Amino acid sequence: MDLIVINGNSSADVSLGISSAVEAAIFRAGDFRVVTPSFGPSTVEGYLDGDLAAVAVIKEVAKWEPEADGFIIACFSDPGLYAAREITAKPVAGIAQSSMVTAVQLGHSFSILTPLQRLRPLIAGLVKKYGFSDHCVSIETIHISVAGVKENYERTVLDFIDAGRKAIERGAEVLILGGAVLAGMEATISRELGVPVLDPVKCAVVQLESLIHLSLSTSKICGFDFPREKECLDCPSELSTIYRQK
Amino acid sequence: MDLIVINGNSSADVSLGISSAVEAAIFRAGDFRVVTPSFGPSTVEGYLDGDLAAVAVIKEVAKWEPEADGFIIACFSDPGLYAAREITAKPVAGIAQSSMVTAVQLGHSFSILTPLQRLRPLIAGLVKKYGFSDHCVSIETIHISVAGVKENYERTVLDFIDAGRKAIERGAEVLILGGAVLAGMEATISRELGVPVLDPVKCAVVQLESLIHLSLSTSKICGFDFPREKECLDCPSELSTIYRQK
Amino acid sequence: MDLIVINGNSSADVSLGISSAVEAAIFRAGDFRVVTPSFGPSTVEGYLDGDLAAVAVIKEVAKWEPEADGFIIACFSDPGLYAAREITAKPVAGIAQSSMVTAVQLGHSFSILTPLQRLRPLIAGLVKKYGFSDHCVSIETIHISVAGVKENYERTVLDFIDAGRKAIERGAEVLILGGAVLAGMEATISRELGVPVLDPVKCAVVQLESLIHLSLSTSKICGFDFPREKECLDCPSELSTIYRQK
Amino acid sequence: MDLIVINGNSSADVSLGISSAVEAAIFRAGDFRVVTPSFGPSTVEGYLDGDLAAVAVIKEVAKWEPEADGFIIACFSDPGLYAAREITAKPVAGIAQSSMVTAVQLGHSFSILTPLQRLRPLIAGLVKKYGFSDHCVSIETIHISVAGVKENYERTVLDFIDAGRKAIERGAEVLILGGAVLAGMEATISRELGVPVLDPVKCAVVQLESLIHLSLSTSKICGFDFPREKECLDCPSELSTIYRQK
Amino acid sequence: MDLIVINGNSSADVSLGISSAVEAAIFRAGDFRVVTPSFGPSTVEGYLDGDLAAVAVIKEVAKWEPEADGFIIACFSDPGLYAAREITAKPVAGIAQSSMVTAVQLGHSFSILTPLQRLRPLIAGLVKKYGFSDHCVSIETIHISVAGVKENYERTVLDFIDAGRKAIERGAEVLILGGAVLAGMEATISRELGVPVLDPVKCAVVQLESLIHLSLSTSKICGFDFPREKECLDCPSELSTIYRQK
Amino acid sequence: MDLIVINGNSSADVSLGISSAVEAAIFRAGDFRVVTPSFGPSTVEGYLDGDLAAVAVIKEVAKWEPEADGFIIACFSDPGLYAAREITAKPVAGIAQSSMVTAVQLGHSFSILTPLQRLRPLIAGLVKKYGFSDHCVSIETIHISVAGVKENYERTVLDFIDAGRKAIERGAEVLILGGAVLAGMEATISRELGVPVLDPVKCAVVQLESLIHLSLSTSKICGFDFPREKECLDCPSELSTIYRQK
Repeated sequence: MDLIVINGNSSADVSLGISSAVEAAIFRAGDFRVVTPSFGPSTVEGYLDGDLAAVAVIKEVAKWEPEADGFIIACFSDPGLYAAREITAKPVAGIAQSSMVTAVQLGHSFSILTPLQRLRPLIAGLVKKYGFSDHCVSIETIHISVAGVKENYERTVLDFIDAGRKAIERGAEVLILGGAVLAGMEATISRELGVPVLDPVKCAVVQLESLIHLSLSTSKICGFDFPREKECLDCPSELSTIYRQK
Repeated sequence: MDLIVINGNSSADVSLGISSAVEAAIFRAGDFRVVTPSFGPSTVEGYLDGDLAAVAVIKEVAKWEPEADGFIIACFSDPGLYAAREITAKPVAGIAQSSMVTAVQLGHSFSILTPLQRLRPLIAGLVKKYGFSDHCVSIETIHISVAGVKENYERTVLDFIDAGRKAIERGAEVLILGGAVLAGMEATISRELGVPVLDPVKCAVVQLESLIHLSLSTSKICGFDFPREKECLDCPSELSTIYRQK
Repeated sequence: MDLIVINGNSSADVSLGISSAVEAAIFRAGDFRVVTPSFGPSTVEGYLDGDLAAVAVIKEVAKWEPEADGFIIACFSDPGLYAAREITAKPVAGIAQSSMVTAVQLGHSFSILTPLQRLRPLIAGLVKKYGFSDHCVSIETIHISVAGVKENYERTVLDFIDAGRKAIERGAEVLILGGAVLAGMEATISRELGVPVLDPVKCAVVQLESLIHLSLSTSKICGFDFPREKECLDCPSELSTIYRQK
Repeated sequence: MDLIVINGNSSADVSLGISSAVEAAIFRAGDFRVVTPSFGPSTVEGYLDGDLAAVAVIKEVAKWEPEADGFIIACFSDPGLYAAREITAKPVAGIAQSSMVTAVQLGHSFSILTPLQRLRPLIAGLVKKYGFSDHCVSIETIHISVAGVKENYERTVLDFIDAGRKAIERGAEVLILGGAVLAGMEATISRELGVPVLDPVKCAVVQLESLIHLSLSTSKICGFDFPREKECLDCPSELSTIYRQK
Repeated sequence: MDLIVINGNSSADVSLGISSAVEAAIFRAGDFRVVTPSFGPSTVEGYLDGDLAAVAVIKEVAKWEPEADGFIIACFSDPGLYAAREITAKPVAGIAQSSMVTAVQLGHSFSILTPLQRLRPLIAGLVKKYGFSDHCVSIETIHISVAGVKENYERTVLDFIDAGRKAIERGAEVLILGGAVLAGMEATISRELGVPVLDPVKCAVVQLESLIHLSLSTSKICGFDFPREKECLDCPSELSTIYRQK
Repeated sequence: MDLIVINGNSSADVSLGISSAVEAAIFRAGDFRVVTPSFGPSTVEGYLDGDLAAVAVIKEVAKWEPEADGFIIACFSDPGLYAAREITAKPVAGIAQSSMVTAVQLGHSFSILTPLQRLRPLIAGLVKKYGFSDHCVSIETIHISVAGVKENYERTVLDFIDAGRKAIERGAEVLILGGAVLAGMEATISRELGVPVLDPVKCAVVQLESLIHLSLSTSKICGFDFPREKECLDCPSELSTIYRQK
């Protein structure tokens, strides 16, 4: 089994953290590969970042498609998730969706902990899209930049513990770490607060492995059908086969 | 890893089918055990059946709790699922919920194929409870009793193919077989219709194995906290430890 | 008219309180009977309790069906309500549903006051199922066990007054006492806070009498059709006629 | 007990039908009075009609307030319902809301049968407002004017039977007659189709009597508080006490 | 282009403020006319006021229909909006709806600032009806009567700034002034809080002008079809042509 | 006033049609400019196309920001709309959102007519995101490629008339043409079917002009705040100022 795990941003650093999470979560002895795009912003903290990240992700999906068994998009805004599901029939997991489908199996309700307040509407949009508005109690933020998380690791963990406590008071039974960059904090926060805390990358690994194991592939009958051939100006080379361009 | 798979009804026959599905889906070489309750109706075709099945399931959960790593409730109405999540901290998968969380990772929308029309409101209630009303296009039925499925296997498969075609016309991208008794039909229907068709038992196996593998347990902080000790009249022996009854 | 009022738990004590509430609410000089199951937990404080209570209720419904004109399930989680509606065509009122349909005729919005925090997700599930998520402002709890209510009656009333005040600040116009055990507190709380406070048992009495008076019976055309005959292992004797078991 | 039943339109004819329905439904030997406004359109078939009817209703509520125990607004668009709940603390039932809260106690789902297609969005608006969008399967219409119902009584009943059959195929378990003018048809349609068919006037009678019997009054704490005193130009005489106008 | 702007209440004073707002917002050099009804309450602070205002508005719509190009109902409860859309095919803007469709183009979410707490359920009803419950963060009130706004202008502005700050903390990105009487405050509040603040009258002007400019008229195919001819007792003279009464 | 209208795809052809629509709709004598990206697919018929189009749009927004007064994204999937609202404070209209906010002012409900069936889930996602799921009756498709529309213009119009008729039978009161490429068909279809038919480009022109005219700008307080400075690999030159990259 060959899992391609695509970091949504272009930070090799973040890819390292993702790699550890995948390593820890992977079921089988199978191969996986974490790829860092050579295009796009160093962190995803909004829609512009996310739209560039989507293209970065798509290019990686197209590039690795022939040898992959499935894909993980390791960025909490799930950039390019639906396009990836068009490009390939092989299963594609977005870490945000994966974490939410996991969370609802562990409790009635969840909250998402994420660094920046500005990400709240974006994440709320995903929650709504995936069907979990009734299950999502809150999106708690701690006012730190995504890049700042690493530099202030101890502080960040403490802040997330506080944020998690607030979420629990509001009724959350499960917490989701809303960011690939937060991978690894889950054990500490969970121990402190006494609730399951989900690392979304790990959730995506097991969800993807599950789909592959059951030989399930994305439905091609309607909205995720393969892209139609057409002209594409200045087409990224990775996508030229898809667009069958001259 | 020791998975306890509880048939919601008391038919040893159905347990055999469940067993094959589990066998086919299980990831690891680990042990599993399909248990058939010695209490309750032979099929679940409504609320009364379901309420009895819930108690049957609960008793099995309590009985096997000490040696289990997790539980599957292999009955499409997920009887006793929430009570089971109270009794044990170990993860519990209901095949209806498992199939839905799997389906939304493969397409925008799904339909559920199930034998009896009278089950439609019951299943619609589950869909709403789990958050997937917007994703569920329809619940298609073919007017056969659950017990009749086995006797008319060929006919049933053909009827479900027709029902699936109708669902696809209505916009479904993925189909879910709504019943443990339908296990094994998914390949034929999928081949015929060209869409993913989910056997819910298999979905539950991989979802449960995923939770166990990540060492995740049910949140005990609020609604799924362990049952409170109290007097229970005529308490089923399996539950006496829980109620700590004299 | 013969109303059968089924206490969902096995406490004769609670049945007494229910009896007073029924007495106070009943319209006609007709007969009613409050029955206490000889099976199940002494209070309902979660899903396990509720699933056992459901079977306890179902058995009473089956037992009294021949001579009843209608049934009330006097437990705020409405255990066995849908199964009861299958078993008999005679109308069945659940006190939670009855209180909510009453509340929306008195104000734009309501809150539910209930003893234990752990009951919040369970009750929220009922609110959603019955269609009142938009009308339900909050579920306020006071951290006392259901059994503790009686022992700390004065304190409990005061705590509910505080909880009700909080609910009103959040926008509630009507308050519902979320528990059969709370019957009788409504006048004091209402007087103190100046809003309607509903005793759910009383609401159920008038709702049920209304249905009986209009000769309305549960729809048998689909989801509440009579249970299908089938084998049932270790079938409770009260249900043997239903399952037509050898 | 003095029930004031206000015909929403100005047809004495319709009032007669309403009167029979009330007579048939009333619980106690108490008095009731059906009043026909001396203002407004002869039937309510849209928003303009409804807005005039609202004022007609309001004037009657204000006029009869001192001697009433409660009010019924006997017009399926519930004109003036919320204003009436402001003017008086005594309970006010709208026949549309009453029929819906009754319907959900008899089945999972209902459809509304109503004469004119143009009324569908108006009624759909009420369904949404009262919280029953998930329970309402369809609003079936038969393309006859409200006035035409009477002239073509036999035909209308047959058409509603057809419409009801369509609703049942779509999943409705209960049917509501969407119009005061349809009172009296319920028995025939119910017998023919085998499902409960609700006369909304009768539902309102029992709902209102229930509220009165329990001494419940409309919450005055926020949105239904008594109207504020103020100047009102050309104030209808019935409302002058409310506006305390010179 | 002739815009008829109808003040929903009978205060000439408020009409002046509306007039300034229209003046400031109007696109073209075209004519507009603000009309003050000679009927109805001096302010709209609830359902009774609103129902009278609806009739006042309707009469003005009927009266000015022949010479108008479109209508604005300048009262935040949008009284008579749907009836007006029946009476005329020319576009009709309600200031509440106009402000909400404008707000969602400027931010993910909005809050509405309005004087009286009792208006919250009424306005929440509009938000739900127009589809914006997910976008509306809160309805903030400051406990002043509508008439009091003018007398305490400075204080009111400061109170709304506080209320707006609370809304922003709750996640609002845009603020709507919920009342025609608040016209003119938007610049100050916006400057202070750094978010767009919408004067609903201005929003209605541009929305209406847009519809007129594109030659769009209200759909007459179903729910907004012209009123049906019928008898109307004591018919307001302005409506006699519509009802074609003898 | 300088409106920048960005064709979401790279077909100069389509830009011509957009240009005519803008020309026809523009209010003032002001300047506008339709720009065709030199990047991306020739039509947008899915998520991959849309994600590339988003970046194409974003680059144009960044490029023209200094001299624009506002932007229109003239592609019915609104690619890059939210990123554009981050990049600039000047108002940005997406033609899908613009058409929906316009439609709800003309009728209770709308349907969207669009060429390809595969676009249905994508468009349904937009409808849900913008809050109009309750207002959207259906998304009707005619099984033609976007490119094919032009070649089969007469046929396409006829097919859309049929599709529109079906939508009306389902309850739609207003029709929206779901594609920039369909601009110009609205008059014919509207005349044939007797309902308003909206060209989304025209709707966007008036919505945008309205926002500009009222000096309204996108809220920068949370989710649409300006993008944060950061490293961006292989950054498109148009975005280098935003990312302040070395």
